[in-house]
Amino acid sequence: MAPPNNGKNQLILGTFIHSRKLDELQYLHNTAVCVDTSGKIVAIEPECDQAKAESTLFPRLRWSAEEVMVTVGKDSQFFFPGFVDTHLHASQYPNVGIFGKSTLLDWLNTYTFPMEASLSSLPKARRVYTRCIRRTLAHGTTTAAYYATIHVEPTNLLADLCLSMGQRAFVGRVCMDQLGPAYYLDESPEQAIAATRATIDHIRGIDANFDLVSPIITPRFAPACSADTMRQLGELQRETELPVQTHVSENAGEIALVRELFPDSTSYADVYDRYGLLGEKMILAHAVHLSEEEADLIARRGAKVSHCPCSNSAITSGEARVRWMLEKGIGVGLGTDMSGGYSPSVLEAARQASLVSNHLVMPGGKLHELPQEEREKAKLSVEEVLYLATRGGAEVVGLRDKIGAFEVGMEWDAQLIGLGMVCEEAAEDDMEDEGNVDVFGWEPWDERVAKWVFNGDDRNTKKVWVRGRLVHERKEN
Amino acid sequence: MAPPNNGKNQLILGTFIHSRKLDELQYLHNTAVCVDTSGKIVAIEPECDQAKAESTLFPRLRWSAEEVMVTVGKDSQFFFPGFVDTHLHASQYPNVGIFGKSTLLDWLNTYTFPMEASLSSLPKARRVYTRCIRRTLAHGTTTAAYYATIHVEPTNLLADLCLSMGQRAFVGRVCMDQLGPAYYLDESPEQAIAATRATIDHIRGIDANFDLVSPIITPRFAPACSADTMRQLGELQRETELPVQTHVSENAGEIALVRELFPDSTSYADVYDRYGLLGEKMILAHAVHLSEEEADLIARRGAKVSHCPCSNSAITSGEARVRWMLEKGIGVGLGTDMSGGYSPSVLEAARQASLVSNHLVMPGGKLHELPQEEREKAKLSVEEVLYLATRGGAEVVGLRDKIGAFEVGMEWDAQLIGLGMVCEEAAEDDMEDEGNVDVFGWEPWDERVAKWVFNGDDRNTKKVWVRGRLVHERKEN
Repeated sequence: MAPPNNGKNQLILGTFIHSRKLDELQYLHNTAVCVDTSGKIVAIEPECDQAKAESTLFPRLRWSAEEVMVTVGKDSQFFFPGFVDTHLHASQYPNVGIFGKSTLLDWLNTYTFPMEASLSSLPKARRVYTRCIRRTLAHGTTTAAYYATIHVEPTNLLADLCLSMGQRAFVGRVCMDQLGPAYYLDESPEQAIAATRATIDHIRGIDANFDLVSPIITPRFAPACSADTMRQLGELQRETELPVQTHVSENAGEIALVRELFPDSTSYADVYDRYGLLGEKMILAHAVHLSEEEADLIARRGAKVSHCPCSNSAITSGEARVRWMLEKGIGVGLGTDMSGGYSPSVLEAARQASLVSNHLVMPGGKLHELPQEEREKAKLSVEEVLYLATRGGAEVVGLRDKIGAFEVGMEWDAQLIGLGMVCEEAAEDDMEDEGNVDVFGWEPWDERVAKWVFNGDDRNTKKVWVRGRLVHERKEN
Repeated sequence: MAPPNNGKNQLILGTFIHSRKLDELQYLHNTAVCVDTSGKIVAIEPECDQAKAESTLFPRLRWSAEEVMVTVGKDSQFFFPGFVDTHLHASQYPNVGIFGKSTLLDWLNTYTFPMEASLSSLPKARRVYTRCIRRTLAHGTTTAAYYATIHVEPTNLLADLCLSMGQRAFVGRVCMDQLGPAYYLDESPEQAIAATRATIDHIRGIDANFDLVSPIITPRFAPACSADTMRQLGELQRETELPVQTHVSENAGEIALVRELFPDSTSYADVYDRYGLLGEKMILAHAVHLSEEEADLIARRGAKVSHCPCSNSAITSGEARVRWMLEKGIGVGLGTDMSGGYSPSVLEAARQASLVSNHLVMPGGKLHELPQEEREKAKLSVEEVLYLATRGGAEVVGLRDKIGAFEVGMEWDAQLIGLGMVCEEAAEDDMEDEGNVDVFGWEPWDERVAKWVFNGDDRNTKKVWVRGRLVHERKEN
């Protein structure tokens, strides 16, 4: 495991880039950020080098220079807030990229349930979860909202691993007492609730205040939960005030099924609402096919949406209307949704969020009939998809005051990004392995960021911190 | 530069995977492939190790074992045909990922023409082209159909570099005597033709039979060429029998412009046809918005299509109907179309070709009204997008008998692919840098290939050969 910061105060120097608002990145050059031993940002000072930090900031903070750990970003590097993955199934990690031509309901039966069921094996769960966490950390995911499986011990293990490897996480034990195959199903509503409580108790035992790892109530999705289970999960949520995650309106066949199973509900989201689950602490994954009324209901309740473009394109679910949801005031973040989604990377999700927003307004696209101006507006810019990946995600998981940007009082969840520089003298055999982003030197910062969004990968993520702790560092080649 | 094969015969042992037909990959395990000094495949023998090859194949080939270079793929690796990038602008390489919210016509003026014009500088052209070739080779692109710029010397330099770095290439000097800005335009039809002839002569001088590098006649696109230029390029093609490349029906605004400029033509493709350019040797990039009649005309003339999904999604052009074109008998390959496309990787183009085919049939998509069965069919499978990337591309560039698969008589244009294996004992700090494909060991070969298509990158491309010559080798970490 990467070494923690030894309980030291930290001074971080270099260029810092983060979202000021939805459509605007702020570029802070030659800046000093001070992070205290608890991982909190206590000072941000532009135009400040180490000497100035020591002479002006340290006295104010009552820090002594000898005890401060210093990290300096190079000229071509920048610090960026850690990514928030608002929806992924750790238990499906081995299946990434494997989905054939399936769509949601057959994909569940063919690929997903068998894999999840097999994670009742603790050694297998350890192997899969360890790799999933290591891989997502390497891609700069500092916070993840995980689905595990229906099994209590393997779910607890996922929470243990997040804690020891240092990833901020919401860990959900999956509740499903219908629809699934006989070999992978909760026996009864009571058993589903008892098992959920067991994982909540376990996590309280390892991280009493849920500072790093929190339980999250997880009804798989409405069709997989009996009315009784939904009712009891609603009661559990009111009792514990824990966050909740589920799926909504992902696929046309699924929506038809929900209509059939819950004939009294006016919409898919309304099912959750009737059981008291649709509230400010709820993360709704997908939201591809919301009706106007359904979206208004979600907005009114303050529930949040995890947009999962890689998944929605891969298993042919559809194209979510992100701009439309944002304009209704719904908080939106990004989810990789592994393994409906094929990639562990939130940066890939950001890239695809941009492309999917383009697909919506293309000739033949769902929103092509909108007036030209509206069509242009529906497209998501580089700045906007990066907002969704950081501040947007923080809002979705209920941590908007804590993570997603660089502000005094927030915690230091961050990544150091380095881009490859093309040397002046072109050599035919010369190419360092810094990934696929090639900066020639003349590009302004916004173009460098665009290059990173469209060609960046984990090779550009040099270091990753969560709550001040260094949790990933790339080996130099 | 990677060392050539020293004029030796080669024995290659391991697993070989290639397209047998559009929807079928063939898996050849424990197989021996013999490549002679000219780079041609002279034997393929399944169930054959080195000893057996030496005792049975070598005598037949009259090879002596001491003079043969042996390459062995490891258990988890496989050989795959090199990729064919049927459409990209080497001169736009520095702009990859930079396109904002633009669409074709404003994108040209904002980003593209200024960059291309700046490559009149030979040192800059050398720097850009060297990196572009190195980068595409590293991604397994063994053949590329390049647009250069309007400048003769820098275009010749691109051809020189392809030859010395060993990439099979079609190098096109761009013809455009209207529409472009005053600072970047051919002076007259005569000058455009003379400049094109100058690059043809240069390439004939460095590679007399165009064995590795060939000129390609390149009218930028119909709106940028006067009738006179088009006519003379048609004559030049008949005289030289060289291949031709251009763009067709990429963007709605562009199509309207063509209709205005060429009121007598019945379609965009018909413009090329009237000047005798639409024939078997023509590569048409994009073909997003073809009418039924236009597609039929293209099929009748035997012209080919370069499908560029990354580009079409990035600059919001639209979604090309690949299945529909294939069913009309049109040959289709993949193009990265840098920098309309954001990625140097044909594997990324293959991935996006799959996703774009899904977008077509999604709820709200252009082909969603088709019957269920037709919708399923319109989707491109992993096998199919890999066919497009190899055999399909070979057909598009007129080399279907030479490259794109492993067959006796074809040339050894290949890549060695290695995937990351997740060790049995999960360690929290252990992750080698073999890229993002994680194979756990239980996956059958078709699932490994799917994982590669959806999460693979240049880290998985360990070695690359063109005509038997090793042209790229990844440094081991």
